[in-house]
Amino acid sequence: MSTADTPATAPVPALDPRGDIVDLAAAIVDIESVSGNESALADAVEQALRAHAGHLTVQRDGDTVIARTDLGRPQRVLLAGHLDTVPVAQNLPSRREERDGAEVLWGRGSVDMKGGVAVFLQLAVLAEDPPVDLTWVFYDHEEVAAADNSLTRIAREAPQHLMADFAILGEPTSAGVEAGCKGTMKLDVTARGKAAHSARDWVGDNAIHKLAPVLQRLADYQARTAVIDGLQYRECLNAVLADGGVAGNVIPDRARLTVNYRFAPDTTPAQAEAHVRELLEGCDVEIEVTDSAAGALPGLDTAPARAFLAALGDGVRIDAKQGWTDVARFSALGIPAVNYGPGDPLLCHTDDEHVRVDELRDAVATLGRWLGVGD
Amino acid sequence: MSTADTPATAPVPALDPRGDIVDLAAAIVDIESVSGNESALADAVEQALRAHAGHLTVQRDGDTVIARTDLGRPQRVLLAGHLDTVPVAQNLPSRREERDGAEVLWGRGSVDMKGGVAVFLQLAVLAEDPPVDLTWVFYDHEEVAAADNSLTRIAREAPQHLMADFAILGEPTSAGVEAGCKGTMKLDVTARGKAAHSARDWVGDNAIHKLAPVLQRLADYQARTAVIDGLQYRECLNAVLADGGVAGNVIPDRARLTVNYRFAPDTTPAQAEAHVRELLEGCDVEIEVTDSAAGALPGLDTAPARAFLAALGDGVRIDAKQGWTDVARFSALGIPAVNYGPGDPLLCHTDDEHVRVDELRDAVATLGRWLGVGD
Repeated sequence: MSTADTPATAPVPALDPRGDIVDLAAAIVDIESVSGNESALADAVEQALRAHAGHLTVQRDGDTVIARTDLGRPQRVLLAGHLDTVPVAQNLPSRREERDGAEVLWGRGSVDMKGGVAVFLQLAVLAEDPPVDLTWVFYDHEEVAAADNSLTRIAREAPQHLMADFAILGEPTSAGVEAGCKGTMKLDVTARGKAAHSARDWVGDNAIHKLAPVLQRLADYQARTAVIDGLQYRECLNAVLADGGVAGNVIPDRARLTVNYRFAPDTTPAQAEAHVRELLEGCDVEIEVTDSAAGALPGLDTAPARAFLAALGDGVRIDAKQGWTDVARFSALGIPAVNYGPGDPLLCHTDDEHVRVDELRDAVATLGRWLGVGD
Repeated sequence: MSTADTPATAPVPALDPRGDIVDLAAAIVDIESVSGNESALADAVEQALRAHAGHLTVQRDGDTVIARTDLGRPQRVLLAGHLDTVPVAQNLPSRREERDGAEVLWGRGSVDMKGGVAVFLQLAVLAEDPPVDLTWVFYDHEEVAAADNSLTRIAREAPQHLMADFAILGEPTSAGVEAGCKGTMKLDVTARGKAAHSARDWVGDNAIHKLAPVLQRLADYQARTAVIDGLQYRECLNAVLADGGVAGNVIPDRARLTVNYRFAPDTTPAQAEAHVRELLEGCDVEIEVTDSAAGALPGLDTAPARAFLAALGDGVRIDAKQGWTDVARFSALGIPAVNYGPGDPLLCHTDDEHVRVDELRDAVATLGRWLGVGD
């Protein structure tokens, strides 16, 4: 799409991918892109790549922009970042502030993950002669249901765009490497009883009371920590939602817990389900899996992963990724993948979201060394 | 209000209070009067009384109709019935059916409590020379919050309208006498925790899990039965509503149970609250009383109650009333009160609500004997 084709509805802010990384990140943060509203930012990214990166083949697919080198290198690495954010909470436009003596960029998306998007956009332009072929993916609809995630669509409709020997997701990791991820499963645990007037409970059967042993077992549960490739994946099993009853004067005939199980990547969804069913054995409830996604093994022993880690140097922190991320999508395609990006993951989705400026600069320098920028 | 003053929006169906009691009950059922929509039925009742009961002084107060004799009798008895129903559930218009060999009138309100309203309306017209002065009250907004109940308003604004030596509420009792009633209290039991991503529960604190011991104690609770005047008031303590959590991937920082305690009328609300707090002692929850109403002692040993029971004869069934009813409002005014009316209380609010025709006829005959009808 050329600039001339852009509808006249809103001008696309121009990004300068060769300028200061903090200015670039701030400009990207300031293009609001809550999930479903990524078009303006996708336009800006696409135009920046077309204007500044003649060494890349640029494709637009919906609000996803894919840019790739084709240098005939023996290996290909994919670097992906999502363009969307969770809803704005009076935290736009961005500001530069000082926190604990460090300069930060504050605003929605600064951590999750427009800091990473800025780093990738700059390196996409600068890395003209990398040691591996590169595929840069800037995608939409990550912060919403998996079915709407554009990686889901592309993996189904055009998986060749995602093929690579190794993938890096720019999710915030405080510029450490977070490898693999745990799986996640949601289960509805439903108790049924018999409605009655609450002044005559002996003709009814209280469904909410039947949740007592379920909650006690969850409260008492000692979660396993799996150690894989030296990384610790700490499992979590929790009731996250509860609802039951119909009125203040009626014995409830139905009560439900939504249980979320985050299981280590050495466990399949089927094994995870069996584990929960075993834990709740004998409770008078029905159990139904409503959603599940396998985790991803860290894959740090693969050749391209080792090359990436070697480029980062001995000082880099390597942890297990606890939350499910899109690395699992690449794992499902047989592509080892890690998370690596600027920003403290504990600040994701918070109203006080902010990224340290030195983490942005370090990420550009570190990845740039690996990709031969400035050689 | 005269007929000429009636707005032309909807014609008021005429009721024939001297006709067959089943026809009268069916006509009243067929004037839909879900709480808040009682005007048409109140109009019809008012017009029937004005047209057919010259011995009564009729007053209209909102959608409540009050009619009274002033014969100088030494005692006054108040008979009250509410005009409203719970929402219609495809159970209007009424039908006559046969169930288990008995003829029934089926439809919303047939039991709760338009059967009783029909009986009272007929007797109000026919009882021209009763042994006691009579106050007939047909009132609105019973099936909703106590604050909206018109008896609440009248007790506050014009309590002289409710003054009597004895009161009978026409709530369904299968034409037995149900005396007094239990009190009722609602309590919010709230657990608080700390939100966190559900893949990192160790930095959070699960509020839903804290409800486990609360639910276990409620499930294990052995409720007391109080015996008063030979009647059994069986207490009930239940979690009736549960809610907690904010999203499927967040450790819940708040969870709440609504607990309903139905306590015997020998117990004050303060004692009831103390009992619940003692039961939940040591649970990590906050307890707040959100609503409470004292019960009513049966008062069957008072003179007007004894006269009423004597008129009903030895065969009448006398039970404790389990559910809270407006008898407690009269009890609070120092007026002994009982429930007496046609219809099986277990059918209240059900979609299959229906009243036996013979119960309607028996109620008219029994109360009519007491009130000197046909002498």
